[in-house]
Amino acid sequence: MTQDNHQIVLAELPQGKLEASHFRAATAPMPAAAEGEVLVKTLYMSLDAANRAWMQGATYRSALKAGDVMAGGALAEVVESRFPALSPGDLVFADTGWQIYAAVPAKRLTKLPRLEPLTHLLSVYGVAGLTAYFGLLECGKPRAGETVVVSAAAGSVGSIVGQIARIKGCRTVGIAGGAAKCALLTRDLGFDAAVDYKAGDVRRALRAACPEGIDVYFDNVGGDIFEACLFNMNNAGRIACCGAVSQYDGAAPRAGPRGVPGLIVTKRLTLRGFIVSDFDAQRSEALAELKGWVDSGQLQVREDVLEGLENLPEALVGLLAGENIGKRMVKIG
Amino acid sequence: MTQDNHQIVLAELPQGKLEASHFRAATAPMPAAAEGEVLVKTLYMSLDAANRAWMQGATYRSALKAGDVMAGGALAEVVESRFPALSPGDLVFADTGWQIYAAVPAKRLTKLPRLEPLTHLLSVYGVAGLTAYFGLLECGKPRAGETVVVSAAAGSVGSIVGQIARIKGCRTVGIAGGAAKCALLTRDLGFDAAVDYKAGDVRRALRAACPEGIDVYFDNVGGDIFEACLFNMNNAGRIACCGAVSQYDGAAPRAGPRGVPGLIVTKRLTLRGFIVSDFDAQRSEALAELKGWVDSGQLQVREDVLEGLENLPEALVGLLAGENIGKRMVKIG
Repeated sequence: MTQDNHQIVLAELPQGKLEASHFRAATAPMPAAAEGEVLVKTLYMSLDAANRAWMQGATYRSALKAGDVMAGGALAEVVESRFPALSPGDLVFADTGWQIYAAVPAKRLTKLPRLEPLTHLLSVYGVAGLTAYFGLLECGKPRAGETVVVSAAAGSVGSIVGQIARIKGCRTVGIAGGAAKCALLTRDLGFDAAVDYKAGDVRRALRAACPEGIDVYFDNVGGDIFEACLFNMNNAGRIACCGAVSQYDGAAPRAGPRGVPGLIVTKRLTLRGFIVSDFDAQRSEALAELKGWVDSGQLQVREDVLEGLENLPEALVGLLAGENIGKRMVKIG
Repeated sequence: MTQDNHQIVLAELPQGKLEASHFRAATAPMPAAAEGEVLVKTLYMSLDAANRAWMQGATYRSALKAGDVMAGGALAEVVESRFPALSPGDLVFADTGWQIYAAVPAKRLTKLPRLEPLTHLLSVYGVAGLTAYFGLLECGKPRAGETVVVSAAAGSVGSIVGQIARIKGCRTVGIAGGAAKCALLTRDLGFDAAVDYKAGDVRRALRAACPEGIDVYFDNVGGDIFEACLFNMNNAGRIACCGAVSQYDGAAPRAGPRGVPGLIVTKRLTLRGFIVSDFDAQRSEALAELKGWVDSGQLQVREDVLEGLENLPEALVGLLAGENIGKRMVKIG
């Protein structure tokens, strides 16, 4: 039986804001697994702000080009294996790209346990949860009683960062866009305070929300919000640099935040950039601790699950506009 | 005998570039040491870019105001002591300010050994040497074979940073202004390469001088040079944030470097700001190691010694313009 593979291709690199029209649907022959590869079927596609950053140039992966199948990570199921340690039916996390089927080198797969709900494998037990965990605990190094601020706080990573900070005994302040997200943070997720960045002067609002200053800032956004936090940092504070989503969806990189590096010196700050794979060696302990918090009800998991391969472009555009709460993913096929 | 005390007062806070006309000479009554204080006589006044930063606002010390005796650290000699552990003739490092005599709380003094030349107590065995030592080794954490870049490389701190990096087996590249300084770095101080930031595109010149990228950047200047280094950093690189002299001698803080925090994330960089007193606990080991290098001839000490209290304003203005090589100080009285 010959079957076609459905794909979404990045037809054109965006010069400014990303739009759904930068993508197009495509059909390709069914891929075949070579020796050492597995053929996987995509179950849930992860949507991430980093997807947009890959269009700007080389990052920790090579840059996307016009005509490429759009890149992205997914929860996928092994359909056919030419690698001894993987069998049909196994679940994996794979960079499948935006397509139904992909042939992927087995050494670039992470095998995942089968648990319910499966979507947790992309949220709290996936890149989002591990990013929150390692970024906060290894880069931010919060101590009980300190003030932790996180931006994009209603997003996949931020919502988990704030809750871990609370579990660790910190005063927790989230920055998010709009009253609804802010209410969610304080009412449902246990944040001590929330700052609505769309409501005015973030620097002043942060000063009010953090009367004792900021000890740890978990930065997902860069730009003006990074600057507002920088000016409110305490001496010897730490900034975990996780992403810069405010800078991704535009043309050229703009000037950076004021106070760099002056305030880093005078306040003796430590800034550390990271990506989750830097901490692969500690992955299983982290997952065990996250699972304990989820099972005990201390950590709430928010997910935003859409459906259909054809809806991936709009799902990413909407993510960049901040329309999701929690981890956005798209159920495929 | 009643004696007058000669001083230099910051008559006016600069709005833009600092000029000698912002200062004026003054005469005050001889200060007297209260209980727990000592009366000291200034021997050598240290000139530091940070002196200018103190005029911009509160840093790790409170901001200077118009009418204050200009602040500054000095090598001084105890004249009269009302503190048991200090006696007349003892040498101390003290924040005397720009004046001949000062009464200073003993607990804010650092007692110094009497060694020759005395000026080394302000250069390699003073704040400059310790700043270079701790900033490079504790914040930069260079490993043999890595590439270390330092800005203001012909200055008091930079000239020592580069030499310590060389001693530790690193490829060492200095950034300095003008061909004469650059020649000094490579010819006399053992740097592997020098980049003249006045000669054109620093980012491109750095790429040529650092064919394997930058692993450690010791930043004394901030601004465009910081940005040029940031874009040439290797993954997992470290930036020791020591100062931002390019930002001190002007009006308002300008926009910060592009690539912050985006490149910090994608390259997984660590930036750490510090001031030398953060490492007080390790001071004696550091001094012993520095002395070993000086005594063996591995570490050359460059000093730029001017004379006369009345010449302090021009000495600071000139320092900010980059006219010194090595540690600038002024011999007083």
